[in-house]
Amino acid sequence: MTAHFESPITSSAASVTFRGLVGDIGGTNARFAIAERDHGKTKLRDFKSFETHGYPNIYAVIADYFRDLGGRPELDYAVLAVAGPVKNGQIKFTNLDWLVTESELAKSSGAKKSRLINDYAALAYALPYMDGDDIKTIGPVTKGFGDVHAVMGAGTGFGASVLVGGAYGPYCLSTESGHASWAPVNDFEADIHRFLRKKLGRVTIENLLSGPGLVNLYQAVSYVRGEKALELTPAQITNIEGPDGQGCRYTVETFLDILASVCGDLALCHGATAGMFIAGGIAPRLLRFIDEGRFRARMEAKAPLADLVAGIPSHIITHPCAALLGSAHALTDAEITG
Amino acid sequence: MTAHFESPITSSAASVTFRGLVGDIGGTNARFAIAERDHGKTKLRDFKSFETHGYPNIYAVIADYFRDLGGRPELDYAVLAVAGPVKNGQIKFTNLDWLVTESELAKSSGAKKSRLINDYAALAYALPYMDGDDIKTIGPVTKGFGDVHAVMGAGTGFGASVLVGGAYGPYCLSTESGHASWAPVNDFEADIHRFLRKKLGRVTIENLLSGPGLVNLYQAVSYVRGEKALELTPAQITNIEGPDGQGCRYTVETFLDILASVCGDLALCHGATAGMFIAGGIAPRLLRFIDEGRFRARMEAKAPLADLVAGIPSHIITHPCAALLGSAHALTDAEITG
Repeated sequence: MTAHFESPITSSAASVTFRGLVGDIGGTNARFAIAERDHGKTKLRDFKSFETHGYPNIYAVIADYFRDLGGRPELDYAVLAVAGPVKNGQIKFTNLDWLVTESELAKSSGAKKSRLINDYAALAYALPYMDGDDIKTIGPVTKGFGDVHAVMGAGTGFGASVLVGGAYGPYCLSTESGHASWAPVNDFEADIHRFLRKKLGRVTIENLLSGPGLVNLYQAVSYVRGEKALELTPAQITNIEGPDGQGCRYTVETFLDILASVCGDLALCHGATAGMFIAGGIAPRLLRFIDEGRFRARMEAKAPLADLVAGIPSHIITHPCAALLGSAHALTDAEITG
Repeated sequence: MTAHFESPITSSAASVTFRGLVGDIGGTNARFAIAERDHGKTKLRDFKSFETHGYPNIYAVIADYFRDLGGRPELDYAVLAVAGPVKNGQIKFTNLDWLVTESELAKSSGAKKSRLINDYAALAYALPYMDGDDIKTIGPVTKGFGDVHAVMGAGTGFGASVLVGGAYGPYCLSTESGHASWAPVNDFEADIHRFLRKKLGRVTIENLLSGPGLVNLYQAVSYVRGEKALELTPAQITNIEGPDGQGCRYTVETFLDILASVCGDLALCHGATAGMFIAGGIAPRLLRFIDEGRFRARMEAKAPLADLVAGIPSHIITHPCAALLGSAHALTDAEITG
């Protein structure tokens, strides 16, 4: 309990380029790139995506990737971001019937150091490198304070993690905030809460802020409006130009209000004064519907700490492979060479 | 972003005793002790509490403490835990009109190294040292997993912080989780939520889990029961043997249900798999009312992650000066000698 932390400057002073295989492995696709990292700056090259269906294991996909490159490159490290919990250096993909382990990853990649990390941990490691074209900032605040960033995101599920930077970092705190109970804040949301409580029992953040959550929310909003809900997919709901456009529009507006509310609550719970980042597949598709003033008003409605939250920027990650970039930064120089 | 972490064993290998002044400064009382730390084991001695009313500043209280000791001892460090936010090495106590700074603390204590920390940060630093008589464990789980502990507590307000241990620690993540929105989980709590929403607007965790929160909750419970609420203090409500005993009993039961629910939610939001600790003045006073099975059932009702939360222990801190003990561990050996 008495660790001493060396300065980041000291330990990266030598000019060394580390080359790594980075990957982002989901249920249906595996994406790879070669990362070249020098003094904390990273270039990704040879990006390629594979459909995982039909492959017996991840190592066969990696072999195909190397074949497409014209041979296996010399690698210092291999880091794969995976959609699920990593335990004891391995992950079991239930829908693929795959077991992926760090030791087999080291063998198949030829890398000296290998690591499996959760995809939201990978996104966390990417946060300090997100700027300019990588993000869309919502609201006027572009720079926060302190060393703690957090990322949250709605996609197949709802993920969230925290990155501690500064002298103590980078350290990623993995959380399960998406499974915390959802807090409605007005009468309309209380009605939605009552409808979903009957259907689901406890209502979690993920029950609303995810693909399946969009469907839950559409059904609840329709019920509260006294309208009949159609059988719509998440994509039909966010499209809003198909059937029941009005119901879909109300659903998307409510989704964004709740996203903003949760963004403010998690900024408080995660102590993330340096910035809140929103990842996941849904938010970038809803960019054209975001009223920035309305989003920030909901995010900042955290009296008596409204002033604190008003100083925290909110960004939507639009970088197409942020998890790959984060994977390139998951290991420190010392961990790679050690 | 490439920090390397030395092993805690290496940096504390030399047998050195560090002597420090530790303090816990609230709005009405200042408590001090001398801490002697050797190899991570700490003894507190010369404990003394002062009423702050009438003192012009904290340094005058410290001078009186040293006079009572028979003179200022040789000190390696001085750490004060304060009820409020520390910014740039100082804190302004609004109700005392005191400004406390680390540089003045160093001068008045004669310590080589001084630090001001938030009281919930101090509690976080104490968590790895809490065992046996220091805590009352609620439920059958005594040991969690991983390196992340969290502390939450209901007192004048609601505080919460996270301690990251292991190779990366000790690192304290300060949070404002008490100001996150409160999530009701059943019809009774939804009725309480509606009543308080009309009174308060947004309902926060602190609006329920604190001294003033007990009063809010008593009024809401009375309203939902169709009974007239009396003008009761928090102490009268938790006593339950005075006026409106039935209403007070319902309020205390609801308070404990909500405390357990929030404990589970914050375990998820803080990734605190090593253990949840409950501090603050209220919980120890309610120990005799806690039904451990009911508490754990509410804490663990976090499907689909009920199994995860079922493995996380819940402890109520009964140690009378945990913040002093934590203050003794806030600085690493290297920070004291550096």
